[in-house]
Order: sequence, then C-alpha cells, then structure tokens
Amino acid sequence: MVGVDAGATTTRCVVATVDGTIVGRGAAGGANHNSSGGDIAERLKAAMSQALSDIDRRAVAGGILGAAGSSGAGRAIFGTASAVAWRDLDLSGDAVPVTDLEVAFAAGTAGTDGVLLLSGTGALAARFAAGELARRCDGYGWLLGDEGSAVWIGVRALRAVLAALDGRGAPTVLVDAAKELFAIGPGSAEETAQALLTAAFACPPAALGSFAPRVDVAAEQGDPVARRITTAAAAKLLHTLDTVEPDPGQPVVLAGSVLLSPGPVARAVHAGLTRRDIGTVRTARDGAAGAAALALARLTGAAVRPDVHARLTGHERPRG
Amino acid sequence: MVGVDAGATTTRCVVATVDGTIVGRGAAGGANHNSSGGDIAERLKAAMSQALSDIDRRAVAGGILGAAGSSGAGRAIFGTASAVAWRDLDLSGDAVPVTDLEVAFAAGTAGTDGVLLLSGTGALAARFAAGELARRCDGYGWLLGDEGSAVWIGVRALRAVLAALDGRGAPTVLVDAAKELFAIGPGSAEETAQALLTAAFACPPAALGSFAPRVDVAAEQGDPVARRITTAAAAKLLHTLDTVEPDPGQPVVLAGSVLLSPGPVARAVHAGLTRRDIGTVRTARDGAAGAAALALARLTGAAVRPDVHARLTGHERPRG
Repeated sequence: MVGVDAGATTTRCVVATVDGTIVGRGAAGGANHNSSGGDIAERLKAAMSQALSDIDRRAVAGGILGAAGSSGAGRAIFGTASAVAWRDLDLSGDAVPVTDLEVAFAAGTAGTDGVLLLSGTGALAARFAAGELARRCDGYGWLLGDEGSAVWIGVRALRAVLAALDGRGAPTVLVDAAKELFAIGPGSAEETAQALLTAAFACPPAALGSFAPRVDVAAEQGDPVARRITTAAAAKLLHTLDTVEPDPGQPVVLAGSVLLSPGPVARAVHAGLTRRDIGTVRTARDGAAGAAALALARLTGAAVRPDVHARLTGHERPRG
Repeated sequence: MVGVDAGATTTRCVVATVDGTIVGRGAAGGANHNSSGGDIAERLKAAMSQALSDIDRRAVAGGILGAAGSSGAGRAIFGTASAVAWRDLDLSGDAVPVTDLEVAFAAGTAGTDGVLLLSGTGALAARFAAGELARRCDGYGWLLGDEGSAVWIGVRALRAVLAALDGRGAPTVLVDAAKELFAIGPGSAEETAQALLTAAFACPPAALGSFAPRVDVAAEQGDPVARRITTAAAAKLLHTLDTVEPDPGQPVVLAGSVLLSPGPVARAVHAGLTRRDIGTVRTARDGAAGAAALALARLTGAAVRPDVHARLTGHERPRG
C-alpha cells in the first residue's frame, strides 16, 4: 500500500506491507493548490518515487492520497494530480484521493468512528461516523477562523506585544521573544513596534504561527499575557471539539503541532478532555501512515487490526 | 494655499484663500505607497491640477501635503513625490509633506494641542502638543492592530458569521447580511461558509471594512452578536484614546467613517467621552481642508483664526 499526506509545506509518502510494516518512506515539497505553488502532480510523484525506490512497483496494490485544502475546487485539482502521478509511476490498483482530515483521523485510530481535533497551522474538529465525515467545525484559515491554532496564538501574541509597546496592554516577556524571532535590534518602543510590523507584514500570515512555541514558553514561565493567550487557545479548541458533539464512548484523535508538542495548550486540552470524561485519547503523528492504513482497509474491505495499525502508525501499543 | 490629503483610495486637494474661502477642489486615485499602486507623484499632480484649474498658479504661496502610511520608509517616498509634483506644476513656495494624522487633527481644530481619535479603515489615537505629535497609539494595520476600526469590526463579524454557521456561535442576522454583501446564493450552512471564505479571501483584507456598516445596522436592530462587536469596538477605541492620555481641557478630534457616521459605535464613543468629562469634541470631515489650514498657519506663522478655520473646514460655527 502507498499512503500519501500532502500538506502545504511537505508531502510525505509511506509504503507499507499488509501486516503494517513500513518498507519505504519519501518526502517532497508541499502539494496544496492554495499555498504551495509548483506542480502538485510532480510533488506527489517525487515523494512516491522516493518511497518506492527499493520496492518492486508491481507489488503495489493501491494507495490513498490525502491533501489539505482539497475541499471545493481543490478536490478536483488534487484528484487529477493524484491520477496523473499514479499513472506516470505506472502503479497498479487505484489511487484514491481523500482529505487531510480523513488521513489524520486514520493516523490516530484504526476505527471508523470518533472525533479528530487538530491544531497546527490551522485548527478544526471533525466527527467521523462509519468512516465518513459526519460533521466539521472551523478550519477556516488564518483570517477568519482556525481559532486556537498556532497562527491564531501567534497573531494574538503579536497584537499583545504591540499593545505592550504603546501602552494599551500589560508589559510582557513576549516583547523580547518577538524581537528575537524577527531579529529586531535596539530602539525606542515606537521604533520596535514599526520594525515588528514591517517584519510581520513581510511574511505570509500563516508563517506567524512560528511565534506560538515562544508563547508556550512564556506561559510556562508564568507571563500573565502569554498565559491568557494559551488558556484562551485551549478553550477555543475544546469549544470547537464540543461543537461537533463527540460521543464519550469513541476516541478523540489529537493532531497538529500545537496539540502534539508538550506545553500549556496541549496540557489544558488534555485536562479538558479528562473533565469531559472522554476515555480514549489518541495522537495522529504520521499522516502518511494514516493514509496507508486507509489504503489497507480499502484493499481488505475490513477494519485494520489494532496491532497492524499500531505497527504502521508508530503507536507503541494499540488502545481503543 | 494648497492642501492635499492623500489616502489609500483617494487623494483630495483643496485650494483656499487666506480668509479660508475654498476656491478649488480636486480628487484623484490613492497615493499610499503601501496599498495604492501607481505613481504617487502623478496622483498628487492630478488632484492638484484639477483643484488649480481655475486659478492663477502664480498666486499659490505654499502647500501642505498629508499622506497616510508616510511613516518610516514611506516618509521619504512621499516627500520626494510631493516635491516632484510641486515642481512639475511650477508652483511657488514650499510643499511640506506631513502625516495624515496632522492633517486630520487640523481638519478638526485650529488649535495646536489636543487628541485625534480616528476609526475608519484603520484606527489610532494621537496626542498633539504645540503642533507636534507627542504620542501615538495603535494604527498598526488590519493584521495586528487597528482595534475598533471598520476592518476590525468587519473581520470580527465575519468570524461570528462562520461560528454561527458551524454551531460554535449564536445565530445572528449577520449571516444574511454577509450573504447579501458577498452575493452568496442559497446552500447548506457548510456550503455558505465555504463560499464566504472564498469571497473574503478574494478581496484585500482592508476591504473587509465594507461589512462594518451592516454590523452597525444589525446592532441597531438589537442583534446580540452585532451589539457585542460594536460595544467591543467602542471600548477598544476609548481605551486607545485613554492610552495617549488626553488632557480634559483640550479638544478631542474624531475622524474616520466609523466615528463620523451615526451608529452604535460612534454613539458609544461619544457617551464614553461624556463620561470622561472631555468638553470639546470636534469632527474632522475634510482632511484636505485641514492641510490647507496647516499651510495657512505655516504661511502666517500664527494660529488660524477660528472663523477662518470654520469656513475652511466646513464647521458651521467655531467652537473650542
């Protein structure tokens, strides 16, 4: 089986056997039609041919290719690119395009029911029932949504830095953290604010998520401004999760850098899940392996065995 | 005197006599080096030559040209463009470039001391002392500041619309208002959300301020979601004002579409000023006339007489 997880910045591919053993890995640039630029089919081919380099391609039985931003118009674009890449590599079986949500959920559990809560560059929740997306919430991008995501945290923190600099807000160690991140030298408060603005406008808004890990650090050090932001982020994420109405008996899969890195946001979300009496919390660390698991389930027409899923996705022991 | 107010979308010019009578007006496209595109000097020339078309140019004694976004690198760019335009039109006297803040403040008062509170596309407060900018606050643009501006209101309202559509937030009449503004047809809640995102991402973020007047209307109709946003906008603006520490004895000049249009934000800001016992509230309706007033004061070396200032800027009777 071939599994592909095509993100905005990286496309990853995993090739696995039916018992869940990974026999090849590959990576290439992003393949998101909104933000990556370049030829999507070429990126998919590059990641797949790297993963297949030591493998007899005739043994490939099928694949699942997941992509971020593949709803609406992006769906057809990615579907075509997947088919072109599959044909150009002369692979047998079908190449089935799916969304990044399905791939992330499958990376966390072999089951077909449950909820995905993702917070990385973006943020969203999705509920799956019988393997189908039953409901989704947020995931609307840096401008109008993605509440509790790294970008949301980064933008809030930079607003707080500017407010601290001009006196609207409380002083915060985030000022120094922002100066360090954007390599801003000494200067008056107003000069620093203007230099920060210039630096922030010079990068794509989605890149402002790179400030989020520093907000986590500042919150851990007890900075009240940073703590307010991380607390609000966790509350937003839990609210988004609640909105898709998770069933307490089903797993919650956590995905994305904000939830998979240790820190105050991830801790507060875990605490919120405990308060909600959600028993089984899984993590989605390897989207491409999730795609391979979906491909395996599709090939066999049955759920992937927990031990096979655990081997494939790197979960040490199968739970839930 | 020649007064010019160069904004992001429009450049306006006023030509006035020393007694404050306006003898010429002109307008052209925007002349903001960050957002307008095109040749700034050509835009300035177009607005000025239109305003000077019925006037003997040899009678021009000098001019003030104010520009938004003319701090930092923009200052030198706008200064050069001003000098080029002035020379090409063969005008005598000096053309002095200033910021849009000075021009807006001068449009509201002939005095040299007081505070400007602006909320239009952007939002900021500035305190002037002896004609010089003594302190400023916010005005950082749509991404990281401009709190309480039309864009801030529009973005918050669109976030609330998406939250209403996916169940995170309360229902609101803003959903229909957004569908109307962006000409979105019937569809499921998720289809509407995706169509709104596509439409919102298709316009420059600063243009999302066009949603703000509809938020005002919805708040007037009692929509709780809209009211929460307009109340928050007014609170942000008053907080920004407080931060520059206005002197109760000195005028507050209000500028920008959000504060000069009747509606809940303007009303709440006026109420807040009354609570703060700020006696003299003026409005800045004509930035180009403010620039002409500055040019007159510069020419005579004295403050502009209140009656002359009132005639020039269209204030019916001079106060403060």
